Amino acid sequence: VTGLRLDSGDSYLAELAEFIAVPSVSRDADRETMLAAAQWLARQLSFAGGRVVETGGHPAVMAEWLGAPGAPTILVYGHYDVQPTGSLSEWSTPPFELSVEGDIIRGRGVTDDKGPLYLVVKTAQAFAAQEGELPLNVKFLFEGEEEIGSPHLPEFLAEHAGELGADLVISADGGMWRASEPSLTVASKGLVSLDIVVAGAHGDLHSGRYGGVVANPVHELSQILASLHHRDGAVAVAGFYDGIADLSPQRRAEIAQVPFDETGFLHGLGVSQARGEPGYSILERLWERPTLEVNGVSGGGKYTVIPHAAVGHVSCRLVPGQNPDAVIDAIAAHVQAVDAPGVTVRVVPDEARVPAYTIPAAHPAISAATAALGVVYPDQPALLTCMGGTLPATSLFERALGTKTLFFSFSVADERLHAPDEFFRIRRIGEGMRAWEALWRLLADGPHRLAPREVSGG
Amino acid sequence: VTGLRLDSGDSYLAELAEFIAVPSVSRDADRETMLAAAQWLARQLSFAGGRVVETGGHPAVMAEWLGAPGAPTILVYGHYDVQPTGSLSEWSTPPFELSVEGDIIRGRGVTDDKGPLYLVVKTAQAFAAQEGELPLNVKFLFEGEEEIGSPHLPEFLAEHAGELGADLVISADGGMWRASEPSLTVASKGLVSLDIVVAGAHGDLHSGRYGGVVANPVHELSQILASLHHRDGAVAVAGFYDGIADLSPQRRAEIAQVPFDETGFLHGLGVSQARGEPGYSILERLWERPTLEVNGVSGGGKYTVIPHAAVGHVSCRLVPGQNPDAVIDAIAAHVQAVDAPGVTVRVVPDEARVPAYTIPAAHPAISAATAALGVVYPDQPALLTCMGGTLPATSLFERALGTKTLFFSFSVADERLHAPDEFFRIRRIGEGMRAWEALWRLLADGPHRLAPREVSGG
Repeated sequence: VTGLRLDSGDSYLAELAEFIAVPSVSRDADRETMLAAAQWLARQLSFAGGRVVETGGHPAVMAEWLGAPGAPTILVYGHYDVQPTGSLSEWSTPPFELSVEGDIIRGRGVTDDKGPLYLVVKTAQAFAAQEGELPLNVKFLFEGEEEIGSPHLPEFLAEHAGELGADLVISADGGMWRASEPSLTVASKGLVSLDIVVAGAHGDLHSGRYGGVVANPVHELSQILASLHHRDGAVAVAGFYDGIADLSPQRRAEIAQVPFDETGFLHGLGVSQARGEPGYSILERLWERPTLEVNGVSGGGKYTVIPHAAVGHVSCRLVPGQNPDAVIDAIAAHVQAVDAPGVTVRVVPDEARVPAYTIPAAHPAISAATAALGVVYPDQPALLTCMGGTLPATSLFERALGTKTLFFSFSVADERLHAPDEFFRIRRIGEGMRAWEALWRLLADGPHRLAPREVSGG
Repeated sequence: VTGLRLDSGDSYLAELAEFIAVPSVSRDADRETMLAAAQWLARQLSFAGGRVVETGGHPAVMAEWLGAPGAPTILVYGHYDVQPTGSLSEWSTPPFELSVEGDIIRGRGVTDDKGPLYLVVKTAQAFAAQEGELPLNVKFLFEGEEEIGSPHLPEFLAEHAGELGADLVISADGGMWRASEPSLTVASKGLVSLDIVVAGAHGDLHSGRYGGVVANPVHELSQILASLHHRDGAVAVAGFYDGIADLSPQRRAEIAQVPFDETGFLHGLGVSQARGEPGYSILERLWERPTLEVNGVSGGGKYTVIPHAAVGHVSCRLVPGQNPDAVIDAIAAHVQAVDAPGVTVRVVPDEARVPAYTIPAAHPAISAATAALGVVYPDQPALLTCMGGTLPATSLFERALGTKTLFFSFSVADERLHAPDEFFRIRRIGEGMRAWEALWRLLADGPHRLAPREVSGG
């Protein structure tokens, strides 16, 4: 099921460097920068009519090759936007200059999601150039707002449902949970986020002249943030766990059978021990349990004042059964119930509210993907795993297009996604292209052939 | 006791604007900038041999006029360095451009301490120009490191004790506690400060892929910071209050007699209620009780990570009886005793450790100063108050020179010291100069004459 001639991984790096060089940080970048990244991608897809499409926010890129009548149709999804860099001083090399170090390449977005997305574009190009056709009908949708919660995607999908219809969505976003063996993700967590804003006096006050007399917003915020968890690690917000099914003995047994070196895992992160909800193993917590994390906190500084305000940034990863709106409401109620005399406390939820997503392990796309990975990694059967990360698009595709999403990314969870020194493994370029080739051929023909539904053309 | 011709307050503003324009932020500024501020001040003192003097850190300015043999000798103290601006967006006008708005002038350092220091320099200039002499011997010492805890002052005073000897130190730093009547400060609080640094994994971790598995430094820091106070507002650190004498019924009665509009005070700060150590009135807390404030907190940001570190900046204002070293040790022990599995917690004390300072209400300098204020504010007797702020120099002068310090500043506590939109009242320029004139004449001759000690010449 393979046959395309691929270049060595290294030969793709110069081109990928151009893509990384565009600082398409969806939270901060101006329109011109986002457009530059979208246009670069559209040009790569020119063989399939690649074009930049307005969304009301940052633009998307669409393309389609529909020359295989009777064959199934897939929609490839990914995103060209990236996370903010955080402090530049924490990067070993400039984040928007692709740098090579041994077997890895480093740069903001290289593993989330520019590298994995680049793979599939190059695979399609190779089919078109070497065989003059693709094995099945392929549509492409790459958005520019994934890292800010895909705020314009729902309306965009509703408006373009006809053009985007497919038998299966395959996401180049997502990734394998570790580097030691191939894996397929059959669930991803949902996401909600909010700010807790505590305000005191109308300005910063000299801590000597006013200390001990008025409430200090940092003290009150600390109290609130500390109250969000029990000391044993469980989330203390009443109602947070509502709606979640108990973990079945069968699922626990499955997870227990996954080879997992807890000590090595923790050592790799630089921590001496695990911490989290009691009563669950690390893998159970990662795959099956929701979390609440304070992602950041700020207020005042290193000067002798009582700061007039302090802010905590909170986000939650959700599992099936949790209602995003209900989780926001539960946190808001919890925060407002904390006694904080002398300050005002506001909870400011962000717009995006993404529920958790699952694809059944028995879905035909999973068996095809397992077979495709078996071609590239013949000695290592693919594990079925869950993903702590969130892909808002998946539930949107299900709702707008009625289509399940297969995650098929060659990113690995240890590649410092969203953090300084984000990286990607060079060998994954070749492995990923070979796997995409195999997957498309398997879905097009043979025992794993995807049954085509009635879908609209482009 | 007055007779100098003073210009209108406004006429001094152009000159003061030059001084404000030099951004002499001792925490951040380069040597060139600090030197420029020191040189400006030395030029103003040229009639008294004004000169820039090295200290091992930011330079100091010294000068002396010693042409009154047999008269007492005073040492005037102040500082030309200023606090950082904080966020520029919170300033109504650029912090280093003196701006006039009605009866006030605004700019970083205008009330702490460039404006109050400028007053005394202009008073001395007026004596020299109009009378050809000063009523008593005056030495000047203006330092450039007050806002960072005067780290080089102890050694500097020890080295220059001979040159700096005086019968009394008069500080142009300090200030009145409110604008409604004159007041004299008979005590100032001490200061210690430290950082609490909580570190987790070796880098920021994607909150989806690692959430719920490792300790979050922001959660742990919040827990630690929240533990520093009881919910009733008292400091919860064991040993923090050690060594402090009980507030006597007499002192409580004195404080209770000070007219104080609690509602108006709180309203002016923009808060709806007071908050602090229970069992004490607002004035008792401000003047007699120590405080512990978290001045700032930072870690992570508004992106979906588990931050690898979080930092809290803490400072304490101390009262007589508290030992600065013991307070640092008590806080460190408290912090280290908080159970925080999965993170490392470090307490990093700052160098400066300043004990509280007092001058007896019966000291002759207080009666002379009371009389001098009576000349300028004949209808309002001066209150004797305590200051929540800290002047490290005072206890250093007592130790190195054996000399008490009289606070004689025309700054007011509401003038947004250390905060954005720091300001100073224009009328205070004339009032302050007149008061300095009266004070010097009173100390030189008549019933308030300061008894000269054996002091070394300049």
